[in-house]
Amino acid sequence: MEHLREELDELNNQLLEMSCLVVSSISQSVNAVINRDKEAAETVFQNEIQIDQLEILIDNLAFQLLALQQPVAVDLRFITMSMKINNNLERMGDIAVNIAQRALSLLKMGPLMPQIDIPHMARLAQDMMSDSINAFVHRDPDLAKTVLKSDDAVDNLRDQMYNEILKFMEADPSMIHPGIDHIFIARGLERLADHATNIAEDVLFFVQGIDVRHHAQPI
Amino acid sequence: MEHLREELDELNNQLLEMSCLVVSSISQSVNAVINRDKEAAETVFQNEIQIDQLEILIDNLAFQLLALQQPVAVDLRFITMSMKINNNLERMGDIAVNIAQRALSLLKMGPLMPQIDIPHMARLAQDMMSDSINAFVHRDPDLAKTVLKSDDAVDNLRDQMYNEILKFMEADPSMIHPGIDHIFIARGLERLADHATNIAEDVLFFVQGIDVRHHAQPI
Repeated sequence: MEHLREELDELNNQLLEMSCLVVSSISQSVNAVINRDKEAAETVFQNEIQIDQLEILIDNLAFQLLALQQPVAVDLRFITMSMKINNNLERMGDIAVNIAQRALSLLKMGPLMPQIDIPHMARLAQDMMSDSINAFVHRDPDLAKTVLKSDDAVDNLRDQMYNEILKFMEADPSMIHPGIDHIFIARGLERLADHATNIAEDVLFFVQGIDVRHHAQPI
Repeated sequence: MEHLREELDELNNQLLEMSCLVVSSISQSVNAVINRDKEAAETVFQNEIQIDQLEILIDNLAFQLLALQQPVAVDLRFITMSMKINNNLERMGDIAVNIAQRALSLLKMGPLMPQIDIPHMARLAQDMMSDSINAFVHRDPDLAKTVLKSDDAVDNLRDQMYNEILKFMEADPSMIHPGIDHIFIARGLERLADHATNIAEDVLFFVQGIDVRHHAQPI
């Protein structure tokens, strides 16, 4: 039993390390876009290698725990939650890579479209990511519910942005290429918010044993 | 023990039903694009509801099996594989919805850009999807390895397409809006291929106990 406890702690700690890496990657990718910072983009590509390794390590750890310890009840819920959060974190790392690639593409062109408020959308999505991870760290269902409520705001912002970017592209063909980069950055931030939502749903299932996926009402 | 066997069969059957629904959704979404078929798009939106319900049902079934039967060895690997494949299938269903939405958007504009070979890319990605599911159905590691080898072809095709679409958009501003739809359809197909790759990797882990994620060499 004590051995199980130690291994569950280990799983928890590895997941926290993974979270820190992914938060840092997303933050650097947003920096790369907003501050036209090539080095920040390079950091994201470096982090990616470590994130991929950590994903496999965490998955193996969870599988070994299931195989050797035959956990039940809350421990079992914790392990299955960990596997899902791990998967979402890895995909967030991929999104950071995509955003960093778009940042490098934009570096070859003019400055960021000042009318398109990428920083605002980035802040919203990053807040959702931090809140979902904190909800996991502190097993906090209220914080998880806050995340679920924020998802619509990010979706609305994305729709609004798409239309504005499209207008700029139509008015000036030299804006087409950077416009597409902007659209993909907005899309990446929207998907980041989706993964934060997934993590919040997993935390709620873990803490309260309720399943709120696919637009079931958060209680 | 017999009860465990029955529940594992049930899990397998539900996963097959989910696979059929998702394959049909993707196929209808591609029809909606290529044949400008509004009804096909509607079918995709209808399927989505069922896919979301099935995802939760399969996840619960897998969790109950872990909780009540304490499976080991190959049964445990099967259950964890099922949870992962389930997750990938649900995301493939989301991609079908995205593609169907783009199809409806294109319906309001001119015909498909004839020079951009969406049908070819769709065929490649759909073949990867079918092969990955068949690899799961028949527990066929060789077929799973075929899927892993196809992923680069889809990525190359996408890069080539992006550049061509960009040229059309720059030459004729009325192509900007449909061009963006084309880009998102290509992006959806690329992600479909990625999920097929994930499923193939999960099948290999299940059948052979080897982990080939993140560009480890398929053997």
